[in-house]
Amino acid sequence: MVQWLERGTAADPGRVHTEGRIARLVVEEQRSAVAELLGTRPRQLVFTSGGTEAVHSAVWGSWRARPAAPMAMAEVEHSSVRDAVSRLTEVRVLPVDSSGRIAVDALSDVLEDGARHAMLPSLVHCQWANHEVGTLQPVREVVELCRAHGVGVHVDACAAAGHVPLSLDELDADLVSVSAHKFGGPAGIGALVLRRGLRLEPLMVGGEQERARRGGLENVAAIVGFGATATALLGDGGLAAEQERARRLTERLAQIALAVEGVHLLGDQRRRLPHILCLAVDGVEAEPVLLGLDQAGIAAHSGSSCASESLAPSPVLAAMGVDAERSLRLSVGWSSTEADVDAFAVAFGPVVEALRGLRYS
Amino acid sequence: MVQWLERGTAADPGRVHTEGRIARLVVEEQRSAVAELLGTRPRQLVFTSGGTEAVHSAVWGSWRARPAAPMAMAEVEHSSVRDAVSRLTEVRVLPVDSSGRIAVDALSDVLEDGARHAMLPSLVHCQWANHEVGTLQPVREVVELCRAHGVGVHVDACAAAGHVPLSLDELDADLVSVSAHKFGGPAGIGALVLRRGLRLEPLMVGGEQERARRGGLENVAAIVGFGATATALLGDGGLAAEQERARRLTERLAQIALAVEGVHLLGDQRRRLPHILCLAVDGVEAEPVLLGLDQAGIAAHSGSSCASESLAPSPVLAAMGVDAERSLRLSVGWSSTEADVDAFAVAFGPVVEALRGLRYS
Repeated sequence: MVQWLERGTAADPGRVHTEGRIARLVVEEQRSAVAELLGTRPRQLVFTSGGTEAVHSAVWGSWRARPAAPMAMAEVEHSSVRDAVSRLTEVRVLPVDSSGRIAVDALSDVLEDGARHAMLPSLVHCQWANHEVGTLQPVREVVELCRAHGVGVHVDACAAAGHVPLSLDELDADLVSVSAHKFGGPAGIGALVLRRGLRLEPLMVGGEQERARRGGLENVAAIVGFGATATALLGDGGLAAEQERARRLTERLAQIALAVEGVHLLGDQRRRLPHILCLAVDGVEAEPVLLGLDQAGIAAHSGSSCASESLAPSPVLAAMGVDAERSLRLSVGWSSTEADVDAFAVAFGPVVEALRGLRYS
Repeated sequence: MVQWLERGTAADPGRVHTEGRIARLVVEEQRSAVAELLGTRPRQLVFTSGGTEAVHSAVWGSWRARPAAPMAMAEVEHSSVRDAVSRLTEVRVLPVDSSGRIAVDALSDVLEDGARHAMLPSLVHCQWANHEVGTLQPVREVVELCRAHGVGVHVDACAAAGHVPLSLDELDADLVSVSAHKFGGPAGIGALVLRRGLRLEPLMVGGEQERARRGGLENVAAIVGFGATATALLGDGGLAAEQERARRLTERLAQIALAVEGVHLLGDQRRRLPHILCLAVDGVEAEPVLLGLDQAGIAAHSGSSCASESLAPSPVLAAMGVDAERSLRLSVGWSSTEADVDAFAVAFGPVVEALRGLRYS
């Protein structure tokens, strides 16, 4: 990305001049790398300004096609999905279990009920994995069920992409959203993957970019960063190794955290993303724990990645029926090391104990 | 921008940890620089993924507030404005003169007619200057007229920002769109400036970013590039000097072009952007001229900056009633030099003559 910026060229990939054609080649090379990582074909992949835009594009296009139809989703979906949908149309809410996992039976009921009343959802939303607790969703069953009913399905894979293999062509969902910065790429770039042949009214129009599927000049530098991230995860020592390494680190984090009294893991521990760990800590608020960890050089956070550290309870935890208003989320990335986990091991217990001491003294 | 990327931090400015707070400070510093360049207050400025998103945000929010109301605009607006508006609501078309300048009287009629029928537009769109021919619009009169009728007004300043002084607080439009890459900044970043106190439903929701006015993680690297561009244009040797330099270069380009027979300038030559020149060349298509110029190392283009070099006639030229389907657009930027103009002087005449020779031989 830095190399691209240092060339000092800012050519529009839509132009016929040499600079433009070079930019076009670079964009298409990166598109191929990202598509390969996701297990899809380059032409099915539309670059967006991030996961939020990808999600909004999926919601917008499906709503425009059938504005009177409801959409279905669980309350554990990311706020960008929940808010984009609920302001436009009626929502059929899918329940989740205490680990945050979507009940496939409930979706089946919603679809059968919709078929009986000739009011099938225009789109079912199902995250690949939860962004807050890491629980993997029964995404293959959900997609199969939707396709059996002829109902469109959008998979928000923003938390999962680049952390677990996706094989999107095999999944065959109508729409899949991904975000580069969630797996080590730059902010400001993401993608919407469309099922082969699917046509959708774009969220942003007015330009022929991205095969007339997303108006606006391509962000070539960020696309280069996205492509580089995908390339790093392809081949040997790529995604599989990264996944293994992340799991080892989070398992150590879990051991350390659980050694402190009154700490519980949230989410499905057998079926979870390798890089996310979500903790409930009895008797302390999340924010002072974050500040205490920050003083020890550990950047953690609470709740969703898109809500500020607000005082509102997490809708994800509420949907799970968990007796905790706020959670502490630990995540590791490509640059995280065993030494980072060591630092957590030294800091976590004393931070929690000190806060509990303040509270009860 | 490179310095920021090379730090290797990718912190979310919404977080309480040290890395997040540093990112927040950087974003707010850049916001101040961009706001200062545009003559507005930082808190009125919302960063977007570019001009197209800023335009769509203005259209979306105004449409949501009054979905049954029409909008008014001229056919010379950028395709992102035209297409975003016309798919959602009825359009009151404002005529332009042969230089592409909007007729203020016609807007006055539209507003008076709207007032009589209790169906005022929800929003009037008026570009600051045309992106294709460079004509400056009577934007102050348009804004005054709209405010006198209590009608919202959106100024698309994407072509003008960074090339002429804007003084947005003085203008007092409801909404102004700008794009960083149109004046030397990076692609993938722009801004929507909102009038003090104006509340608008965001195009993208689901996150509290940008004071809950634009969901999605901030693109800090691109914001740094946007801020650096604004900073370079502030103070001595800044915008005023750049404007003067651009005008000198385009005046020379005009002289050179007009010395070739059958070449005409399009647009208002007294009231135009300093950096854009639009030519009609009798007897040749624009595309082979572009390819000929490219061989001489000159990257020019035809028509709009957001349409590909398609075969469709330019709606801007059509609205101007100009007898030319396609135009040749020359523009200069901060990195353009007198030597670049010399190269054009050497190449342009022979390229045009050679193509005419092919055509008539």
